[in-house]
Amino acid sequence: MNLSDYVLEFLEKKNVKNVFTITGGAICFLMDAFSRNKNITYTSVGHEQAAAMMADSYSRLGPNFSATMVTSGPGATNLLTGIACSWFDSIPSMHICGQVNRHELASFNKSTKRVRQVGFQETNIVSMAKPITKFCYQLKNENEIRYVLEKAFYISQTGRPGPVLIDIPMDLQRKKIIPAKLKPFYVKKKSIKKQKLIKQIKDIIYNFKKAKRPVIIIGGGIRISKTNKKLLSFLKKFNIPLVTTWSGIDSITHDVKNYIGSIGVYGSRSANFVIQNSDFVLSLGSRLDTRVTGGVPKNFAREAKIASVDIDKNELNKNRGLKINIKINESLIDFFSNFEKLSDNLVINKLDWLKKSISWKNKYPIVLNNYRSQKKYVNPYYFMERLSNFLKKDDIVITDDGAHLTWTIQALKVLKNQRLFSAFGNSPMGYAFPASIGASIALNKKRIICIDGDGSIQINIQELQTMISNQLPIKIIIINNNGYGIIKQFQELYLNKRYEAVDSQKGVTNPNFLKIAKAYGIKYSEVKNNSNIDKVLRNTIKSKNAEFINVFVDPNQKIIPKLTFGSPLEDLSPQLSRQEFNENMIIKSVNKVNKLTESN
Amino acid sequence: MNLSDYVLEFLEKKNVKNVFTITGGAICFLMDAFSRNKNITYTSVGHEQAAAMMADSYSRLGPNFSATMVTSGPGATNLLTGIACSWFDSIPSMHICGQVNRHELASFNKSTKRVRQVGFQETNIVSMAKPITKFCYQLKNENEIRYVLEKAFYISQTGRPGPVLIDIPMDLQRKKIIPAKLKPFYVKKKSIKKQKLIKQIKDIIYNFKKAKRPVIIIGGGIRISKTNKKLLSFLKKFNIPLVTTWSGIDSITHDVKNYIGSIGVYGSRSANFVIQNSDFVLSLGSRLDTRVTGGVPKNFAREAKIASVDIDKNELNKNRGLKINIKINESLIDFFSNFEKLSDNLVINKLDWLKKSISWKNKYPIVLNNYRSQKKYVNPYYFMERLSNFLKKDDIVITDDGAHLTWTIQALKVLKNQRLFSAFGNSPMGYAFPASIGASIALNKKRIICIDGDGSIQINIQELQTMISNQLPIKIIIINNNGYGIIKQFQELYLNKRYEAVDSQKGVTNPNFLKIAKAYGIKYSEVKNNSNIDKVLRNTIKSKNAEFINVFVDPNQKIIPKLTFGSPLEDLSPQLSRQEFNENMIIKSVNKVNKLTESN
Repeated sequence: MNLSDYVLEFLEKKNVKNVFTITGGAICFLMDAFSRNKNITYTSVGHEQAAAMMADSYSRLGPNFSATMVTSGPGATNLLTGIACSWFDSIPSMHICGQVNRHELASFNKSTKRVRQVGFQETNIVSMAKPITKFCYQLKNENEIRYVLEKAFYISQTGRPGPVLIDIPMDLQRKKIIPAKLKPFYVKKKSIKKQKLIKQIKDIIYNFKKAKRPVIIIGGGIRISKTNKKLLSFLKKFNIPLVTTWSGIDSITHDVKNYIGSIGVYGSRSANFVIQNSDFVLSLGSRLDTRVTGGVPKNFAREAKIASVDIDKNELNKNRGLKINIKINESLIDFFSNFEKLSDNLVINKLDWLKKSISWKNKYPIVLNNYRSQKKYVNPYYFMERLSNFLKKDDIVITDDGAHLTWTIQALKVLKNQRLFSAFGNSPMGYAFPASIGASIALNKKRIICIDGDGSIQINIQELQTMISNQLPIKIIIINNNGYGIIKQFQELYLNKRYEAVDSQKGVTNPNFLKIAKAYGIKYSEVKNNSNIDKVLRNTIKSKNAEFINVFVDPNQKIIPKLTFGSPLEDLSPQLSRQEFNENMIIKSVNKVNKLTESN
Repeated sequence: MNLSDYVLEFLEKKNVKNVFTITGGAICFLMDAFSRNKNITYTSVGHEQAAAMMADSYSRLGPNFSATMVTSGPGATNLLTGIACSWFDSIPSMHICGQVNRHELASFNKSTKRVRQVGFQETNIVSMAKPITKFCYQLKNENEIRYVLEKAFYISQTGRPGPVLIDIPMDLQRKKIIPAKLKPFYVKKKSIKKQKLIKQIKDIIYNFKKAKRPVIIIGGGIRISKTNKKLLSFLKKFNIPLVTTWSGIDSITHDVKNYIGSIGVYGSRSANFVIQNSDFVLSLGSRLDTRVTGGVPKNFAREAKIASVDIDKNELNKNRGLKINIKINESLIDFFSNFEKLSDNLVINKLDWLKKSISWKNKYPIVLNNYRSQKKYVNPYYFMERLSNFLKKDDIVITDDGAHLTWTIQALKVLKNQRLFSAFGNSPMGYAFPASIGASIALNKKRIICIDGDGSIQINIQELQTMISNQLPIKIIIINNNGYGIIKQFQELYLNKRYEAVDSQKGVTNPNFLKIAKAYGIKYSEVKNNSNIDKVLRNTIKSKNAEFINVFVDPNQKIIPKLTFGSPLEDLSPQLSRQEFNENMIIKSVNKVNKLTESN
């Protein structure tokens, strides 16, 4: 058995069914192992960046993780933006890069340590990927392979998950190995600090009881730790408002009455009023970053005591203005199971507060009536409302980056076992489409709803061929505002409408999507105004094919509401009249900080 | 004046006419400066990777260098494969990345140093780009800007050139500055070691006189140092054979009688016989890497004394088996001008040796008669021969990576002021097409011949839109072997024809190029066999438009000749009969090293 066969067998044992790849000189021997292993397959893609994004979404959804295999040099560097998606969103993906023979490495010979390149397509990918991986290692000899694979796997899955990269020189790929003689990786399982956790849980229960206006924030950690079922039984004890972050958006069905909305810079007015007026916050698996808190963290939930469960102690110990009173640095699994033991018959009823919260939700819906009656162009908020109606209970929606992401997260109603995600932290253009391919492959050619922008679809448009050749029923919905709408809104607000590099007036043009779709043999539809949304969705969402749905929205369509720079989270723009605003505030508001603090 | 205006003014003063960009949140203020500066423009592209490749080719051809401007996070990481092209091929490009506000950087606050991300789309691009840039710096305050720009520019252009990256936080982009008060960058010009150089040049002249079979290798350093005219007057003193590396392929017109061919793993038999039988070698601006020397460097020109002029002392001091007897670590400019002074009336005549070399060139041409008479499919070698005939004296040909690159370099006859290049060191799929766009923009919408593969065009296919919207007359010639031919040849040779991930049998499929071209409104032609090459080239090369020319070659078409693993450079495959081989060898040949030493 050679080392390449061993690598495939390892992946197979870890329940990896499919690897995403572009072959190349330095990965040839690893790819050759597929000819001898029929239990694992690969998908050849058009660009390694897309391969990494496919592996990312596969790892979000699949029974286990996925991997990429790529060649050295550009093959490896092409992965980096995709790996960064897994890094910032805590996704355990594995990336296996071929490398030049060991004796061709610049580092092999003292005299060549400072030479730019020795072997053909040699690149120091380990140094380049280090800032965005949990573990990144170049294999030194064949006998390390078991240890390194097991260690990489363990690290990627344990604690706060994340991507790992293993760089394997060609000469090692074809080395003979004797599996029984390979050194394994052992790890002492980290035990939880039980006494501390019990004390903290009791403290949380005490605070919930004492609080008048408590709220629970549901973050992305729920899906990452696969505790969504535990969350549901936990929530049964609480009759209080629930809010989510963007990453937590699909960890709860939106039709439960105490779900108020998502919080943050692009949150809903109702959810932001809830969080800002609260007096006790329990955050479950959220890093509470500035997109959640607003640009001035000390203004976030500023009269509340805050408890936060986060597996990453670095996130809990950020000292940027937001004070976390109860820092629980344990997994959500351990938190929920210990909470369960300590909360027999516990019920937290804050019915007046819940009623107030629900009244906000009813008073400030995202989708307004005038959106529904809009005559010209499709209103994206109304579109999302209608799209929700056409989805099945286990549909998967993946969105890209930009204005359409915001519209989707704000207005799509996520139900039951549906999924809705993007690469939230890295937020690259071009994620949603390859991620939809990875998702469909992970789930046995399941239909996937891909919501993309006219700008962002360009980035990985080459994967249309991968979708077609693998016959994947992906519904590509382009929310077409003919340019980079989110940047345009920024230029309008802060740069006196000096529009540079955002639309066709300044050199940003779209191809003819109808012709592109036809070139690849994809069915194409257009939605030009609200009145034909239903008809098009009816014909496309249920079809067995891939579909390209071009939805025209006003090029000047805004994101509503949106926090402007320096305002506290409760005071979203367009601003309410001061009277109405003040009526909603139970605590005192603060003045706007007169400083640009957010990036976009 | 704000810092962003200053950056643009700096670029303008350095003769940068155009910047390649995709806008985004963190680069908005820098892009806004274009609204106030009419002397510099930008091109919005479809993917930042392409922007970096455009800047690379622009810098190869333009009057000066070019730059990219991209947003933080994915915008910046998307550049990396393109930056690596500049790094390995010594191209001075500049990359300006937006970054989150300084107070949002993880590094800003001690408590967040180990957090994955603080600001939205924050990524540590400086660490990631360090291995592939000469200078990579995150701006700390606005008063550094002049110093940092001048330093970055100086470093990128001086010594062995290369790319530089400057990361500019958003808050600094909009800071007011007073140019007169900014600290400049001063550098003491490094003086050459004149006495040593004179001694070395005398030594070289002595060796040329003494040698029976001297040869000059022309490397990529000639174009990088812009010494092609100096080279021509230098060469007038020599009636000896001349050979090139791949990077040096366009530094000499191929119709001079003493040009024998290119050397190396995919070199010509004639040039390899010349170099291997030589007794004195002068290498001008080549790093003499293993693609030039073969996998066993000690077998390269093994009976010759070797002199090498290389600006990078690390390359000269590689201790991997190849012995360089005279190491000249000076610029080619200084080498040529001092040589000129020391060589009045010098003429090196080795006419018998030159005659022998020319006889090899005539006996072992790349393009064989049976290629010309091939009936089925287009023969790529013959195609290149014909293409040469249709080119003007200043045409620019850019090729991608893979089999078609090899065919082009082997068979295209480069004349007069023509250019022929690829990203030789990094050798990514997807370079040629965006590089052609960069080249066309650098040269006032000049026509560019882009030779690409059916596999590699996928990587940056989104730039078809950039080409069309900028009305660039690029002739995209796809040498279509329906898969990854160079890898397939490897699998045939070394993996017993176990073809994985190389063609449509195993999931690598092409889109319908006719339909793709039509979708973008590009004229499309096909060349299906040798007999219609001329007709199609006649109609397309001279047209004023972009053209898409799909050239069908046999999916099993080989690269001929090619060095197989372990063989010495003189013994290319398909191997000559041992009798014929031995008749060509003036020195003794060596046995094949029975070891796989090359990557592909």
